[in-house]
Order: sequence, then C-alpha cells, then structure tokens
Amino acid sequence: MSKSVVISIDAMGGDKGPPLVVAGLALALERLAGQDVRFLLHGDEGAIAPELAKYPAVAAVSEVRHTALKIASDEKAATALRRGKGSSLWNAVEAVKLGQAAAAVSGGNTGALMAISKLLLRMAGGLERPALVASWPTVRGVTAVLDVGANVTSDAAQLMEFAIMGEAFHRAVHGKSAARASVGLLNVGSEDIKGHEEVREAHRLLREAGLDIDYRGFVEGNDIAMGTVDVVVTDGFTGNVALKTAEGMARFFVTTLRETLTSTWVAKLGAVIASAALKRMRVRLDPSSVNGGPLLGLNGVVVKSHGGADAKGYANAVKMAADLAASDYAAQIALNLEKLGEALRSVRAAAETDS
Amino acid sequence: MSKSVVISIDAMGGDKGPPLVVAGLALALERLAGQDVRFLLHGDEGAIAPELAKYPAVAAVSEVRHTALKIASDEKAATALRRGKGSSLWNAVEAVKLGQAAAAVSGGNTGALMAISKLLLRMAGGLERPALVASWPTVRGVTAVLDVGANVTSDAAQLMEFAIMGEAFHRAVHGKSAARASVGLLNVGSEDIKGHEEVREAHRLLREAGLDIDYRGFVEGNDIAMGTVDVVVTDGFTGNVALKTAEGMARFFVTTLRETLTSTWVAKLGAVIASAALKRMRVRLDPSSVNGGPLLGLNGVVVKSHGGADAKGYANAVKMAADLAASDYAAQIALNLEKLGEALRSVRAAAETDS
Repeated sequence: MSKSVVISIDAMGGDKGPPLVVAGLALALERLAGQDVRFLLHGDEGAIAPELAKYPAVAAVSEVRHTALKIASDEKAATALRRGKGSSLWNAVEAVKLGQAAAAVSGGNTGALMAISKLLLRMAGGLERPALVASWPTVRGVTAVLDVGANVTSDAAQLMEFAIMGEAFHRAVHGKSAARASVGLLNVGSEDIKGHEEVREAHRLLREAGLDIDYRGFVEGNDIAMGTVDVVVTDGFTGNVALKTAEGMARFFVTTLRETLTSTWVAKLGAVIASAALKRMRVRLDPSSVNGGPLLGLNGVVVKSHGGADAKGYANAVKMAADLAASDYAAQIALNLEKLGEALRSVRAAAETDS
Repeated sequence: MSKSVVISIDAMGGDKGPPLVVAGLALALERLAGQDVRFLLHGDEGAIAPELAKYPAVAAVSEVRHTALKIASDEKAATALRRGKGSSLWNAVEAVKLGQAAAAVSGGNTGALMAISKLLLRMAGGLERPALVASWPTVRGVTAVLDVGANVTSDAAQLMEFAIMGEAFHRAVHGKSAARASVGLLNVGSEDIKGHEEVREAHRLLREAGLDIDYRGFVEGNDIAMGTVDVVVTDGFTGNVALKTAEGMARFFVTTLRETLTSTWVAKLGAVIASAALKRMRVRLDPSSVNGGPLLGLNGVVVKSHGGADAKGYANAVKMAADLAASDYAAQIALNLEKLGEALRSVRAAAETDS
C-alpha cells in the first residue's frame, strides 16, 4: 500500500471561504480517484464542519486544525508577516515545513502567501524570489508562463531565475522528462534592440551565460496562445496582466459564441446538433481550467488558487498541488541549480555592476 | 460638393510592401464608399505602379510621389531620424505637416514613425510623448487601450497624459460626444496598495488632480474585453503585450472552433446549419479588425498599421485615419488640454519632486 499524499489547505482563503473550498475538495477527490489523498484543513472549525457534513467523502479523508485567525485579502504582506502567525494561511504553509503535508493550497492574499512561504520554507538553492507560474492552454498543449503576479518588478537576474524555475517545472509537470523545454522571453518585438533595459539585459545573459536551457530568444504576446515555446518568462506585472487579459478574452468568446448560436432559429438548430462538440470546446477554453499557480523556487510545494475561482477551479489547484508533489520537480530544479549556481552568481554580479 | 479627404500613405511600410498596401487601399475605398477620399502614395514608383494597374479604382484617386529611400523595420529610431529624411515614411508624415494630407498611414517601423512624427508634427499643447491607441472590440462595444507600443516605459505624468488623450479619442471616434468616456488604469489588482510605483502614483494623481475625466480607478486585464471602462491606460510595454496576447487568444479560439466543428460528422452538420452565424462571429473576433492604431498627442493624424497586417487589416487602418481626420478629436483634445494644462504642469512638477 502506497503512502498517503497529504495536502494542506487554507480553508479560509478566497472570496467565498469554506463552502467553496470544501466543494472544490470534493471535485478534486473525484479527479484524483485512485490516489490516496488526505487533506489537512486549517481554519475556523465552526465554519468548516457544516461544509464537511455535506461531503462525507471529503470528511472521510480530512482532518481539521482549528484557528480563528485569518489574513484579510487586502492585508499588506509586511503586516501579514508580522501578525499572521497562527492564521489559516500560515498554518497551511507551516504544515509543509514540518513535513506533515506534501503541498499547501491557498486562495488567499497572494502577497501574504508569498511572504509567509518564503519565510517558512525559504528559497531553494540560492534563488532570490519566488515566481507564480500559470499553466496556459495553447494550440500545442500547455505553456508555462511566469511570473504572473508574485512580483511587480523583476530585474534581469530574476528573469534568469524564472527561466530556470519554469524550465524545470514544465519538464516535471507537463513535459517529457527526456527533452528540454524551450524558453522564450516576453517582449514587444523580436529584434535585439526592442524592449526596456531589464528585458534586453536578461536576453543577453540568457544567451551568454551558458545555461543548459533551450533559450529561443524574444517572443511576443501572441506567441503565448500559439504555444511557440514551452516556457514564457516575464515580470510579474506584465505576466499578471497578460493572464487576466486572456481570461477576459475567453469569457468574451464564450459570450459571443452563445449570442451567435442563439441569434436565429437556424443557428439554434445547428447549435443543438453541434452541442457536444461545443461543450468540449467550452471546457477546453474555460479560464478556470488554468487555475492553480504554484509558487516556484521554494523548498516545498505551495499552490495559489485565484481568490475568485469556482469549485472546479479550486479543484484544479488541488490537483496541481498533488501532481507537483508527486513529480520530480524538486529533484530537477535541485540538480539544475547546483549546475547553474555558478552562472547565476556571475550573472547577479554582472547585474549589480551594471546598475 | 465636399472637399476631398487626402490620406498620405507610406507605400513601402510593412512586411509585404506595395502589393499589400494597394490591395488594402482597394478594400478601404469600398468601406469608405460615398466619401470623397484621395491617396498620396510615397515610395518606389517602379514597385507601386504595377500594383495600381491591378486596381483601377485606387489608381483613379491616387497620386504617386516617388522616393527610393525606405526605412528598414529593424532600424533604430535615432538612425531613422538622422538618415530617414526623404524616405517613404518621412514623406508620408511630411505631407500632413505641409497640409497636403489630412492623415498619414504607415505599416513601417513603429519607433521611426513615432520619432519622425514627433519631429515633423510636434506634440500638441504641452504633451510630452505620443501614445499608440488600440480600438479593442469588447462585450460592450469598443474600448480604447493605450499605450500599446509607442513607449517602453512610462512614468506617472505620462500615464496621466495617456488618460487625457485616450478619453478625447474615445469620445471623438467611438463615443457619443455628449457623455464623458470612463477611464481605468491597468494594474494587477484593484486595491490602492497594489502595483509598482508608477501606477500607484498615477492613480493618486488621477484622483487628486481634479481633471474633468470620469476616472474609475484600477482595472485588471480581464476588464479590457469585458468593456468595464471606455479607456484603459497603461505603459507601452504592458499594453503591447496585452494586445498581442489577445490576438493570440483570438487565433487560438478560431483554431479550436474549427477543430471542434469538424471533429465529428454530427458537429459538421451542425456547423453547416449554423455557418452564417459563426461567420459573423469570426468577423467580430478577427484580430485584424482591431488593426489601425493612431499615434495620439501629435498636431496631426498619424495611424500605424501592423507590419504583418493583411489587406483587410490595412484597410481598417486607412478607415481609422479617415474617421479620425473627419472627427473633432483635434478640437476635443485642444479644449481639454487648455483646461487641463495647469493640472498637468503641477502633476509633472510633483512627479519631478518625488523622483
């Protein structure tokens, strides 16, 4: 009998709290059928227990660890660090640190989750900042895009780190471990002269640092959904805007498609006949299917779920946490970082000399 | 009889040169049917003449001004300024300066177009930098997004200027002139504490400067396609990535829709029946329908067409130039800038004190 995979859950995180979280866990259990998964739920027992009562299958594999403390979604990260000890978010991450869980999931405050995870788990092998990675459905499969919101600015050395983390993540979770994942740097044009200073410097470093990465140079926004490369590297501001812009577009398309297919009775008839195929398409394009962004670069698996995700989206985040915990990502990046530590140090020194 | 609207064309600009440009003009003529439009084509007469021969309707309203000089798409803006005099792009803009044309269109080098336009036409009423604006189809109509690529970095004062220019543009071209256009500032969250320094400072200024603008605060990427506000303000790097990301998504959706509707014979049958409605949808979502970005802030109308636009996209850029030339945008922004000059000066002074 295999050992249980324990996932630590911030039951109070997200816009809707325990009702959505527990409904999401129920869906996640269905999607993880056959795997021996257990949940450690952190939060207000009085609010969690009635929800567990609705889903006996979840209750059967869950343990609740009560805490009344909760970090607000608009709390500054610095305040959360100072006053967040013992909160549901803090305890969810701490369970990973203590080896009680293989991964943590939270739909709470991104800044607080990043700061607390960094404090408790610490960065892996010399990395400087965590990055939030999105698994973006594309024409050719899945492209990993990072950072999508853990940082608001990123210098050239950090963009390098994102490339290393993203490459290992894509290989471990989405790729064939034999092949290298291709990496592109997001810019406003493909020529070397394009873009702001940080992105041009990162481009130069990625080409010259001799990393064991299949770096393909600059890519543009349209390359993301085209799946031109496996990993798209960008700063957290641009990445977050790009991800949310794409989600808006997905909603726009679904709305337009629905209007289109109910605009005339002939179209309605066609839609009924094609409905199974169109339903498959909706599922493929559903923005909540990209929910579940791991925070890369830490000694441990932490997955951020959108604050506004629905139960299906939350289930995807839990599934991502289970997949990542079961993958060899930690080993992949540990190996890479050992090999690449030297290059990273010289790059960082160069960046400091330049600035 | 009304006076002709003359549009000055950089016939050498864009990836495919005169064959695409002239085909685009033919489509533009159809779309502008009933309007008295004439074209002034700048470029290599030997390459333009055979194309005009294919489209007698275009030839009948066109005058060719020969020049052998052409600015390369990867030319740096500074070099283009120094050595670009007499090139097709330069001459196209100069015709606007000399009053020979009401607007210029180019599919050439964006940086060169911006630098040469700024030099020849100069900025309107105290504005500092031009901005490239995209007319983005949304759930609720059209949202103007700027800057989408004229600048790679933008400080708080420039973001303020973009708000003023974009508001006047939306009112003049897309809006009802009576109502004000609503304005949002693109960020990674809606709370005041979110985002990098420039965007938080611009937010403060837009709220406190007492401008006559319906400023709604921060918006996120998903708000663009949702049409939450009429005008979305952002720096040129983020805006360009967002626009191209959306274009990639549009192509992804069309690809997926096509696959979906040919996946089974039942779906195929449905698609045939719903085909007219689906065709309307494709037209509405076609990324080339957003082609044609005016460079705002100049004393004169200059429209940038994508270098890779097809003939339909190029026609849209020409139509945008004609619409903008016929609109009261110049008067709107002149009035606004006079009224807002004081606020702008104090804002810029504040930005300088802060830095």
